[in-house]
Amino acid sequence: MRNFKVILQYEGTKYQGWQRQDTTNNTLQGKLEALLTKMCGHNVEVHASGRTDAGVHALGQTANFHLNTQMTPEEIMNYMNRYLPEDVAVISIEEVGERFHSRLNAKGKTYVYRVLNTDVPHIFDRRYVYVFPEKLDIMAMQKAATYLTGTHDFKAFTSNRRMKKSSVRTITSIRIEAIQDEIRFTYEGNGFLYHMVRILTGTLLEVGTGERKPEEMLTILESGQRENAGPLVPAKGLTLVEVRYS
Amino acid sequence: MRNFKVILQYEGTKYQGWQRQDTTNNTLQGKLEALLTKMCGHNVEVHASGRTDAGVHALGQTANFHLNTQMTPEEIMNYMNRYLPEDVAVISIEEVGERFHSRLNAKGKTYVYRVLNTDVPHIFDRRYVYVFPEKLDIMAMQKAATYLTGTHDFKAFTSNRRMKKSSVRTITSIRIEAIQDEIRFTYEGNGFLYHMVRILTGTLLEVGTGERKPEEMLTILESGQRENAGPLVPAKGLTLVEVRYS
Repeated sequence: MRNFKVILQYEGTKYQGWQRQDTTNNTLQGKLEALLTKMCGHNVEVHASGRTDAGVHALGQTANFHLNTQMTPEEIMNYMNRYLPEDVAVISIEEVGERFHSRLNAKGKTYVYRVLNTDVPHIFDRRYVYVFPEKLDIMAMQKAATYLTGTHDFKAFTSNRRMKKSSVRTITSIRIEAIQDEIRFTYEGNGFLYHMVRILTGTLLEVGTGERKPEEMLTILESGQRENAGPLVPAKGLTLVEVRYS
Repeated sequence: MRNFKVILQYEGTKYQGWQRQDTTNNTLQGKLEALLTKMCGHNVEVHASGRTDAGVHALGQTANFHLNTQMTPEEIMNYMNRYLPEDVAVISIEEVGERFHSRLNAKGKTYVYRVLNTDVPHIFDRRYVYVFPEKLDIMAMQKAATYLTGTHDFKAFTSNRRMKKSSVRTITSIRIEAIQDEIRFTYEGNGFLYHMVRILTGTLLEVGTGERKPEEMLTILESGQRENAGPLVPAKGLTLVEVRYS
């Protein structure tokens, strides 16, 4: 069996997230596995760097799968792009060692959360941004972000209430920029908990509106209580941009 | 009757173009007129700076309409954005003098044609670009563009074979830039004939691939024959960016 690593782009709008489900075939993993299984004539399992939730997009999701095939990587990529729906694409492919695993070997990820900070619609980006027209104090949000950067227990920033494994993660940077009418949050870290980027963004937006002080980030982190953090912002604003490997 | 000028954004993918038609209500003019007629209780006619064809997008189409209403411009814009489909929006509105007409008073327009110059899909922009992976000589296209810039009879560059009015237009500039994997053509001029931007782009792409020499633009212009120019490229790559008024 040969092992292939692919970088995937997708618009998450129409999908029930990454993970295969018994109750729907409208998942990204489900679509990809069905396609590759058909291509190879044997069952194929596709491993992603992590699950993306329903509605979340990817510019650079990474996945791998083992195939019994004589096809070249390029032939596999062309086949996939011919038969995948128009909102999913393989943008690169390479053959990797048999032990490579896109989740277990991932060293870091970059997510972007896009906020359209005006009530004037932007039609072309409407599927990729969260419309939040309230005036935002960017410097206050940047200050709050400094408290969140680094290695912390992010238990207060996940919707997963029964975590068996560690909820300690390292955020290497949070960049907050105004780009025309958009406020763009870029998160880099070694890994992110369930809903973590969206709850971080929801909390930072409350700092931006003045509802919270930047310093509160410390007490939220220390509390470990989800209810102390801000709201979960909508999936449509979130894009997985890149997964890094050593 | 008060006269209102609006700037509109729309994604043209789902529409049969701007112009109202008896055989379909799936036009932009039709949608807008129906909405405003309902809002005011009298028939409203919406005039655009020009018709956009089926599938063509707008970041800044300009239109005007006369209403018998007590509503403020802001109330009208809010009403429209509440009831318009998600792929159409009013991004600005102002009350103008009764003689203002968005087509007759237009002094210039800017169109962008976006070519994705790779066979690697770009999912997020897929509705806004024409995928054309062949290698392109940008400098040759830029040289060809210099022959097209200025005041010329563009009869060879329109699909309208029975033009009663003049087909002389002035193109003030054609900018051709490589932006990552995209080649972006920006046309500014005092006005454009039916299909003109798409035929100009199709012809420039033939220069880019080496099928034509830049100098041929002169003989095509002189001939006035549509069949001497290049192909009509797809509507989805075209966006009306701005309409200028004095």
